[in-house]
Amino acid sequence: MTQDVDARAAWDALESLVEAGDRAGAEALLDGLEPLESVRVVARLDEDVRARLLALLAPEDAADVIEHMPDTHAADALESLSPEEAARILEELPSDAQADLLGDLDDDDAEKILAAMQPEDARELRELAAYDEDTAGGLMLTEYVDVPARSTVDEVIDSIRAHATEYASYDIQYVYVVDEGERLVGVLRLRDLLMAPRNRKVESVMLRDPHSVRVDDGLDELMHFFEEHHFFGAPVLDEHGVLCGVLRRSGVEAALAEQSDETFRRTQGIVGGEELRSMKLLLRSRRRLAWLSVNILLNIAAASVIAMHQDTLEAVIALAVFLPIISDMSGCSGNQAVAVSLRELTLGTIKPSDLRPVLLGEVGLGLLNGLALGSLIGVVAWAWQGNGWLGLVVGAALALNTLVAVCIGGAIPLLLRRFGKDPALAAGPILTTITDMCGFFLVLTLASLALTHLV
Amino acid sequence: MTQDVDARAAWDALESLVEAGDRAGAEALLDGLEPLESVRVVARLDEDVRARLLALLAPEDAADVIEHMPDTHAADALESLSPEEAARILEELPSDAQADLLGDLDDDDAEKILAAMQPEDARELRELAAYDEDTAGGLMLTEYVDVPARSTVDEVIDSIRAHATEYASYDIQYVYVVDEGERLVGVLRLRDLLMAPRNRKVESVMLRDPHSVRVDDGLDELMHFFEEHHFFGAPVLDEHGVLCGVLRRSGVEAALAEQSDETFRRTQGIVGGEELRSMKLLLRSRRRLAWLSVNILLNIAAASVIAMHQDTLEAVIALAVFLPIISDMSGCSGNQAVAVSLRELTLGTIKPSDLRPVLLGEVGLGLLNGLALGSLIGVVAWAWQGNGWLGLVVGAALALNTLVAVCIGGAIPLLLRRFGKDPALAAGPILTTITDMCGFFLVLTLASLALTHLV
Repeated sequence: MTQDVDARAAWDALESLVEAGDRAGAEALLDGLEPLESVRVVARLDEDVRARLLALLAPEDAADVIEHMPDTHAADALESLSPEEAARILEELPSDAQADLLGDLDDDDAEKILAAMQPEDARELRELAAYDEDTAGGLMLTEYVDVPARSTVDEVIDSIRAHATEYASYDIQYVYVVDEGERLVGVLRLRDLLMAPRNRKVESVMLRDPHSVRVDDGLDELMHFFEEHHFFGAPVLDEHGVLCGVLRRSGVEAALAEQSDETFRRTQGIVGGEELRSMKLLLRSRRRLAWLSVNILLNIAAASVIAMHQDTLEAVIALAVFLPIISDMSGCSGNQAVAVSLRELTLGTIKPSDLRPVLLGEVGLGLLNGLALGSLIGVVAWAWQGNGWLGLVVGAALALNTLVAVCIGGAIPLLLRRFGKDPALAAGPILTTITDMCGFFLVLTLASLALTHLV
Repeated sequence: MTQDVDARAAWDALESLVEAGDRAGAEALLDGLEPLESVRVVARLDEDVRARLLALLAPEDAADVIEHMPDTHAADALESLSPEEAARILEELPSDAQADLLGDLDDDDAEKILAAMQPEDARELRELAAYDEDTAGGLMLTEYVDVPARSTVDEVIDSIRAHATEYASYDIQYVYVVDEGERLVGVLRLRDLLMAPRNRKVESVMLRDPHSVRVDDGLDELMHFFEEHHFFGAPVLDEHGVLCGVLRRSGVEAALAEQSDETFRRTQGIVGGEELRSMKLLLRSRRRLAWLSVNILLNIAAASVIAMHQDTLEAVIALAVFLPIISDMSGCSGNQAVAVSLRELTLGTIKPSDLRPVLLGEVGLGLLNGLALGSLIGVVAWAWQGNGWLGLVVGAALALNTLVAVCIGGAIPLLLRRFGKDPALAAGPILTTITDMCGFFLVLTLASLALTHLV
């Protein structure tokens, strides 16, 4: 609890420093906080105080704060600054972070900020931002060192030394060797440079035909590239073999983590972008409702199956107790199969056309688990109402519906992927609608068939 | 579709080559496949054929295949080999992969394999495997280069040259400088080594007081370390400042991605470890049932609320149609709030004790969305049965229950985290049980209050 008081104190103090326009004070305060603590303190500031804080800080310090913010906060904060202030801060970030952030801005705001940047920087950034976020182009850095193939080892070392300040912020591990057309012809490892005679041409020291990725390679391909090769980075080439940037393994891993988080959020119904509670209430409400309103319509459609069998229900009112159970349990069983299919698609052990092995894998499991769950609920129904037929109807319905649920749950992600739809977003609602309809139908139809034994 | 035929052909061919004991043929076939294709081909082999393939290949090629397998396959495959074969393959993997894999094995099998390794290697591996998986110790590599502080630049370069073959598989970017007690005193960047006069002592060239992480630092701390510092790796120290290993940014990113995937799987009810459809049916069934059986009991408990109001339901049978809708929609609303809380905990914008801001953020939203969803379902009920009171009862129940669901959904992950429980695993079932009970209670109690207007 002391920590909590500290955080609130830091937060109040930071707000006062911003009000007072005390740059040195604000910088000192932020420097003194633990990284995790500073994330929380900045996140809790009012939107306008946060913007004023960024305008107040030196651009490199503001860039530091921006990098620690969740992406949506960062974009909002940049938009609330003047384009000149935003441009100065943006220029302090690494190229991949610049491109990411630019992609999160409104087009208008992005254009204004680009216009306020150095024309050359703006041109490069525009190019970077044009790549799809989850491709090598969207993930690469443009901070790298390249040298002509005809240079000597000595010249390369001199050039690294001459640019020492500029290169200080790069993570130099490889020097890239290019021909006159900027096409990649080889790679120099720093340690080879260290051991090579200084008058040798780099051509004779470099590794030829280096492994590389294509600028339009997607996340799946990049993941498998880095699984295949134990590199910590790779050169990125365009379709003519021209070197465009450098891709870090950690960049790909980070994008994969982001993708997993996104998958999770979408299955939980957080769509239309990340939500943080510091965002405007109406925006949050609208985004959540967009998802809920689709679901409520699907739910009403599924429940209409019950409405159509109202007479059966009226005769055996005990069934009403089991309808929500069957709906929920079938959803649970189906969701497990969805998760396994999504995982297998990610790992690459199945591909979207592999419907057969998936269904084969689920049928047996559906029979087993259906039998187990059906027996359990059947016994409960029997014991509660003292009617074995009720147990039989409810148990058989859940058993059959479990089989249906796991088969559909296993198949849906493959089918959605095949038709280019996002499985994380659509699999859940489609699954539960089908299993609800099917489950309600099964229990009420079986009950109407056995009606004489139930009443 | 051609691709599919190719995969099956490759799979058949590989099986025949394994039967025939044709090492060269199997190696050539695997080499010729696209990485993604080879994952699929190997994943589809029968368990015993997969094991024989690994025994057949040269250890370094077998290690290559192992690294591409999903972890559970890899562990199973190693267990089915003789301890000597498994040890030879294991020794070809990087130290962090060795430790991971060892952790996935049964203790008995792990011991046998360790006994078959070089004693020194086994001792090191045992130490590595003892660290918690998601700490710096569990993620670090032990392949790094360290030199005594009193060496000269020349000696360091000579030593790197002398160990060129051994170091070839390392990703050398830094050389770590240690004192007599193996405590870290500085870091040498290769590029500084490149530019420094050769007779200088490394003490005078190195960066002093390098940033480092502690061997027991957890994933959260490591993530924030790499957010704070733009390094691609960091030295890992024990409590005495002794250098134990090197942690790569990409290793932390990969562990975060794995954690997100795991969170997702757990919320979907895949517990007790990853499931692949190539695993034994009974194991898969048992694991899924472990989760389902808890859920069905919770469902029965929730449904007992309906059973207690059976007379109301009997009087107004139309209510039975709305019970599953209210149950499902409240679950959806609550899950959205769960997802946002989990995200904010990960980003660090809230901590487990921040119940107040979370609830404040959800109350307003719950009122808005409850009003929207309640009105919609109320109008549907009214239109369907021509009874405004039914609409009012159903609508009010959903509106109120939406408010309850978002507040509970927002709070549960914080409370679970505070009590050291896994929010991903428990949040869903707890949420839906409470919201079901509360929803059923609301709609049936409101209906019994308005009973004279409903019948």
